[in-house]
Amino acid sequence: MIYFDNSATTAVCREAADKAYYMMTECWGNPSSLHKVGFEAEKELNRARDIIADKLGCDSSEVYFTSGGTEADNLAIFGGADARKRRGNRVVTTAIEHSAVLAACRQLEKMGYKVIYLKPDDSGQIPDADIYNAITKDTILVSMMSVNNETGLMLPLQTVSNAIKRSGAPALFHVDNVQGFGKTKINIKKLGIDLMSISAHKIHGPKGVGALFMAKKARINPRTFGGLQEKQIRPGTEPIPAVCAFGEAVRVLPDEREELETITAIRDKLRTALCEMPDIVMNSREDAFPYILNFSCGKVRSETMLHFLSERGISVSSGSACSKSKPSHVLEAMGFNHDRIDSSIRVSFSRYNTLEEVDEFVKVLREGLDNLQQRK
Amino acid sequence: MIYFDNSATTAVCREAADKAYYMMTECWGNPSSLHKVGFEAEKELNRARDIIADKLGCDSSEVYFTSGGTEADNLAIFGGADARKRRGNRVVTTAIEHSAVLAACRQLEKMGYKVIYLKPDDSGQIPDADIYNAITKDTILVSMMSVNNETGLMLPLQTVSNAIKRSGAPALFHVDNVQGFGKTKINIKKLGIDLMSISAHKIHGPKGVGALFMAKKARINPRTFGGLQEKQIRPGTEPIPAVCAFGEAVRVLPDEREELETITAIRDKLRTALCEMPDIVMNSREDAFPYILNFSCGKVRSETMLHFLSERGISVSSGSACSKSKPSHVLEAMGFNHDRIDSSIRVSFSRYNTLEEVDEFVKVLREGLDNLQQRK
Repeated sequence: MIYFDNSATTAVCREAADKAYYMMTECWGNPSSLHKVGFEAEKELNRARDIIADKLGCDSSEVYFTSGGTEADNLAIFGGADARKRRGNRVVTTAIEHSAVLAACRQLEKMGYKVIYLKPDDSGQIPDADIYNAITKDTILVSMMSVNNETGLMLPLQTVSNAIKRSGAPALFHVDNVQGFGKTKINIKKLGIDLMSISAHKIHGPKGVGALFMAKKARINPRTFGGLQEKQIRPGTEPIPAVCAFGEAVRVLPDEREELETITAIRDKLRTALCEMPDIVMNSREDAFPYILNFSCGKVRSETMLHFLSERGISVSSGSACSKSKPSHVLEAMGFNHDRIDSSIRVSFSRYNTLEEVDEFVKVLREGLDNLQQRK
Repeated sequence: MIYFDNSATTAVCREAADKAYYMMTECWGNPSSLHKVGFEAEKELNRARDIIADKLGCDSSEVYFTSGGTEADNLAIFGGADARKRRGNRVVTTAIEHSAVLAACRQLEKMGYKVIYLKPDDSGQIPDADIYNAITKDTILVSMMSVNNETGLMLPLQTVSNAIKRSGAPALFHVDNVQGFGKTKINIKKLGIDLMSISAHKIHGPKGVGALFMAKKARINPRTFGGLQEKQIRPGTEPIPAVCAFGEAVRVLPDEREELETITAIRDKLRTALCEMPDIVMNSREDAFPYILNFSCGKVRSETMLHFLSERGISVSSGSACSKSKPSHVLEAMGFNHDRIDSSIRVSFSRYNTLEEVDEFVKVLREGLDNLQQRK
């Protein structure tokens, strides 16, 4: 079995699974309870928060647990826009965000906000000039992902930071860092990031937990109302098994730079092999984040190829799992034609992948291209 | 160790913990992925949904997973009110709901809705006449819990059902059934319930997952925007380990009636013993749900008693864990005086408790009363 779909989800690492099990069988108290069973759970909750804050480079008090990346994005966007609504009406994002950001922004439009969706140019990157033009002094929120989940494009966060400063906008700066967290360092303070979404299941933690970093100086309005948990920014009994497993997954993360080297070698090997195949067109830029490689398969539709590969024990995707078989809005925004979009394949790596898997993958992909193109 | 705080959270049963572990280590795919690894996870997701639907007595398509009871309550209340806002402005609830409902309703008021908070009378029950008076033909939402989480009061859901019908109100009927689910049968169809919140961690499932039942005929607006999961009513990668553990916890639930008998025997034994102690006043009605018994300890403050008991390996609470040490709004709504509220203790049972634990608890409680009252 070759699992090359790590941007959709990852295998939970043993340490995280064991921790979740421990939290369910040995330390299952409610952290809000005023007795020993509760205190022990609270201690573990705090420990997980400390580990994650340490990895983010922030204070533990700036980490708010959520049910995952989608909730963190929604909380940042709606909570952020609502908190600043008296200071302006303009929100800036990109056309290639994850659906959790895009759909939330479309909802903001229905609520009366003006939303600007920046598009990539022919090079596949969002132009600096467009960012400077878009962020005006009545912009209250800028939401930009760190790494695109379909192509690995690394977005110009520094430019956003500069543009917010230059414009004097009262904008909160939100970064959807679900694909980048644990894989690349982002200097939250230097970039002046106010809000950042992360998720456990992209870094070998369990599904069902994420977090929103919210800088002390930033204020957003909650979207969920209830108990006193997460300082009332996100009430509800904390998902302790998942939270503590998240902490463990982060604790055992390898050094980012070392892992990046390994992954880059795997990606480069695959990219080189694919470039030799005449039917393949690259959709990821050469300078893309090496964890993700997106390409199109000529005349073979993604779904057909996915099925062919899956039958042979290889897992890849055609884009975001959250959008299932809908055509990719990311590749659309890049101006690609229908056939190219309809035949796209996303390969995404983790530390559990090897160079040998690339050989096998390329072999089977070639078989697929030969068989499926002929059959057409 | 005696754990008598099962309304705050329960020990995860072995079957649920094992299932979560299996889902993390063996079946960790993303159910939205179009390959075998994803399909296997999807199959397990569907299975959990079927089990829960079966227990609820509804169709699987009517079960929407959430991160817990708080999110389910918020989704029902905001999503329900928003969906019906053109048909009226009036929302009816009670003053003794869980904070997840109460705080959401207070937020509705800020948004311009008129919210009626029904109060219990001297008997501790919400009077039928008040329910009929409150539900008028411009009422768009009624939210009432099945079982009060602090006192075990069983609320008059049948009266609400009748009142909605009689008034001809376009009201959605929401039931926060977090405390009742798995412990007592509620006939959703007969009562005409549109929305019902349930949570895993009150019935020996893990924290971090719940569900909202939404009847096919009912429509609410989503509050979270993103991918296609949960028919876009609640997007975000499904918390598979927790969801499947939830399914297992429900699958192994004992027969409600048999368990109720056992729990009733435990509660009756405790109630009888407590009634013999001159300093104790009962706050739960005699006909309350036997899983919960609330009483006040005379002059000993709850926190002091909680600490005394916790030091001796006994876990109880002073009320809702979600409200931590805030004075109980439920006992306040019942018109109790400050001392009675300030000395309240909630004992709550599960199938892991025994009659023998009652003897030990009563012994230690008596010691506590003797020691702590003297010290004052």
